[in-house]
Amino acid sequence: MPDPNINALRPYAPARESFLRGEATPRSFLEGCLETIEARDGAIGAFVSLDAGLARSAADESTARYSNGRPLSPLDGCPVAIKDIIDAAGYPTEMNSALYNGNRPRADATCVAALRRAGAVILGKTVTTEFACGTSGATVNPYDAARTPGASSSGSGAAVGAGMVPAALGTQTAGSVIRPASYCGAYAIKPTHGVSNLGGVHPVSPSRDHLGVLAASLEDMWRVIYQIASLGSGPAAQPVLAGGETLPKAVKPRRLGVVRLMGWAELDAPTSSAVEAALQRLREKGVETGTLESDPALAELDKAACEVEAPGYDVMAYEMRWPYLAYRETGHELSDTIAAYLDHAETVTPERYAEALGLCEQARARVGELARGFDALITLSSSGPAPEGFEFTGSRAFLAAWSILGFPAISLPVLRVAGLPVGMQLVGTAASDARLAALARWTDGALAG
Amino acid sequence: MPDPNINALRPYAPARESFLRGEATPRSFLEGCLETIEARDGAIGAFVSLDAGLARSAADESTARYSNGRPLSPLDGCPVAIKDIIDAAGYPTEMNSALYNGNRPRADATCVAALRRAGAVILGKTVTTEFACGTSGATVNPYDAARTPGASSSGSGAAVGAGMVPAALGTQTAGSVIRPASYCGAYAIKPTHGVSNLGGVHPVSPSRDHLGVLAASLEDMWRVIYQIASLGSGPAAQPVLAGGETLPKAVKPRRLGVVRLMGWAELDAPTSSAVEAALQRLREKGVETGTLESDPALAELDKAACEVEAPGYDVMAYEMRWPYLAYRETGHELSDTIAAYLDHAETVTPERYAEALGLCEQARARVGELARGFDALITLSSSGPAPEGFEFTGSRAFLAAWSILGFPAISLPVLRVAGLPVGMQLVGTAASDARLAALARWTDGALAG
Repeated sequence: MPDPNINALRPYAPARESFLRGEATPRSFLEGCLETIEARDGAIGAFVSLDAGLARSAADESTARYSNGRPLSPLDGCPVAIKDIIDAAGYPTEMNSALYNGNRPRADATCVAALRRAGAVILGKTVTTEFACGTSGATVNPYDAARTPGASSSGSGAAVGAGMVPAALGTQTAGSVIRPASYCGAYAIKPTHGVSNLGGVHPVSPSRDHLGVLAASLEDMWRVIYQIASLGSGPAAQPVLAGGETLPKAVKPRRLGVVRLMGWAELDAPTSSAVEAALQRLREKGVETGTLESDPALAELDKAACEVEAPGYDVMAYEMRWPYLAYRETGHELSDTIAAYLDHAETVTPERYAEALGLCEQARARVGELARGFDALITLSSSGPAPEGFEFTGSRAFLAAWSILGFPAISLPVLRVAGLPVGMQLVGTAASDARLAALARWTDGALAG
Repeated sequence: MPDPNINALRPYAPARESFLRGEATPRSFLEGCLETIEARDGAIGAFVSLDAGLARSAADESTARYSNGRPLSPLDGCPVAIKDIIDAAGYPTEMNSALYNGNRPRADATCVAALRRAGAVILGKTVTTEFACGTSGATVNPYDAARTPGASSSGSGAAVGAGMVPAALGTQTAGSVIRPASYCGAYAIKPTHGVSNLGGVHPVSPSRDHLGVLAASLEDMWRVIYQIASLGSGPAAQPVLAGGETLPKAVKPRRLGVVRLMGWAELDAPTSSAVEAALQRLREKGVETGTLESDPALAELDKAACEVEAPGYDVMAYEMRWPYLAYRETGHELSDTIAAYLDHAETVTPERYAEALGLCEQARARVGELARGFDALITLSSSGPAPEGFEFTGSRAFLAAWSILGFPAISLPVLRVAGLPVGMQLVGTAASDARLAALARWTDGALAG
């Protein structure tokens, strides 16, 4: 068991206060990140490319803005790492696929352009699985080099979890933001579907693709997603913008609904104990926790969330026809994982695709309705700590439903099981992002405190 | 005035009957296209790239399928030209921007992949304005080399109008499919928003971007859009799929609503006479035509369709932030036209963007409601024949509202004004594509016959 202190998170927000007081600078903060990367990334392999010179020059510009008393935003000077399916000018975007070796994008993705406009320091590209849906990359878990960091935002999870960087962008189509956050001990948000414009982000399944943020604190997480929603708005940016540019004030939940999905059966005894202890702690602090046994609406909700996975799978496979089928038909090689999705796609007719989209839409309305009696839903972010090995990047049992429904989810790194991090996940209904962040702030305090 | 017969359209569907009878082949049909291109494209400039070898080999494969009695679809063997903002393997995609000089896409766009699967012969790339929203390309109108072919699908309009090819793909964000069809004498459909997956099509404004088809006949037009909806479905493919793989049977409209939008005031006397004569002909055949004077709901509809342009403009400009703002911020040069959109975008807050999206959505519902008393709406496709010169590519007065509302529109090349083509436009409400095609078939017969 390695020393868990080695993975101290590196929050940005307190450092920014020191920039404002003139006690530190974005450049000195960046140097701390680079030292940790230098010390640890050889073993962890979170980054696929990094240009310290580019980052230093952006940090120096930020430092000058603080000296002049004109920082661009509460995120100015924050180093952010970018998952390598997202375009960032100055870096190749290689998707962990030979097909994109040496690919140089012509411009930033919307989200990266938004971060630059807010003064963030783009600090390299992080390892992704092949196109965020295929073969795993080379990253290991910062807590145990024999374990997966989770996928597909593997490098982003490991970089934040190891304290190399305060925040990193990820994407989630099934569970690719929340799962690596859980395994690597990071905070994370997968917002409502459509919060950000996904221009310049390689697609998996547009109906389900979300940009997300992994971060060292809720405050950092919120500042990043806020700037992306503000300067790179998708059609549903308002639920994040409503919260303001810094983390909303804590709100104590009155009632949380404990959902189990298909993952509860997968829990081992230590994980079960850890989650039960956390729920007990919330109850002791006066939060009601509804259960499937005590609340028929919650039981129906849980069932509906499980059942949406079948049409959601058809939607994803069908939408993956482009560009993956086109890649294959043009003679490019794809992994067996992606090939299996494409084989499934060939069984999905356009009529079934339309029907499946309709079923997901109905489930969205129905689950939203059934959740009304709760401030939010609560469950695990993964069915335990990171599994050993790298082939299997972990269960999606607690994750895929929220990606299909497009509901916001926040992972809090508040559990430890055998010394390894496991996240608790708060889930809201559509467009409740700001409220969910407020509830998460209280819950994080209650469980981490 | 040039000889109008030189621009005889080249329909594919009757030729296909001859393939089935063994009297002709896809290869011989393609050779006819290539001869016309050879004879006329030096002067017209519809194509930006064309590889006769690739096309001949695809046509030969199609010929073999007909010989074996196993054509892939009713579109097998049909040559289709592709607007140069749409990726097609084997060709560069250059967007009429120096930024994309020599750009080689890794795979087909969804729509092109769908056409290939259906057996269509991809016959080169056609001239577009810069990114389909900026500076004009080099194409001239096949009816008069001193006039614009319309934009932005300029090359696709000219190629079909000059009889070089039976069908071509275009895209429409404001009026870029229907307008060149009107000016070049082609049939065209801009379907309901979301009929096709736009993977591999360079974006202007995703909320308003549509793939469309320009063709030598309604039958050809329908076969192309059907295969794209079927094999490259977007989330709203059903309205086209409902019509089947060949053109729906003609349906006589009982009542058409004549809308004027902001374009009626622009009409010169010959165009006014031509459209009045056409409407009179429909009335003589027993079709009621509602007018703004006779029908208050129609007057309100017309007003609502005009008023949606302001929020629609904000949506477009805001969405153009990506990738155009990112291109500019990375140091790439863009035309003044695009720069003006970006300048406007800087005045649109995320809150206004959300509000504008909401206003468009409300207008969609309201206009749909007000249109209920009509089988379809009818108006012009342009405010007269193609204007002289190339800087101004024509008014969007009759066009932008339907792109913002996402309603299907079909242009019929049934008017002649001073020897030049002008289209009549039939417009349906959301998801009425198949019904609209049936009504268009009857109307085309009534007006062309």
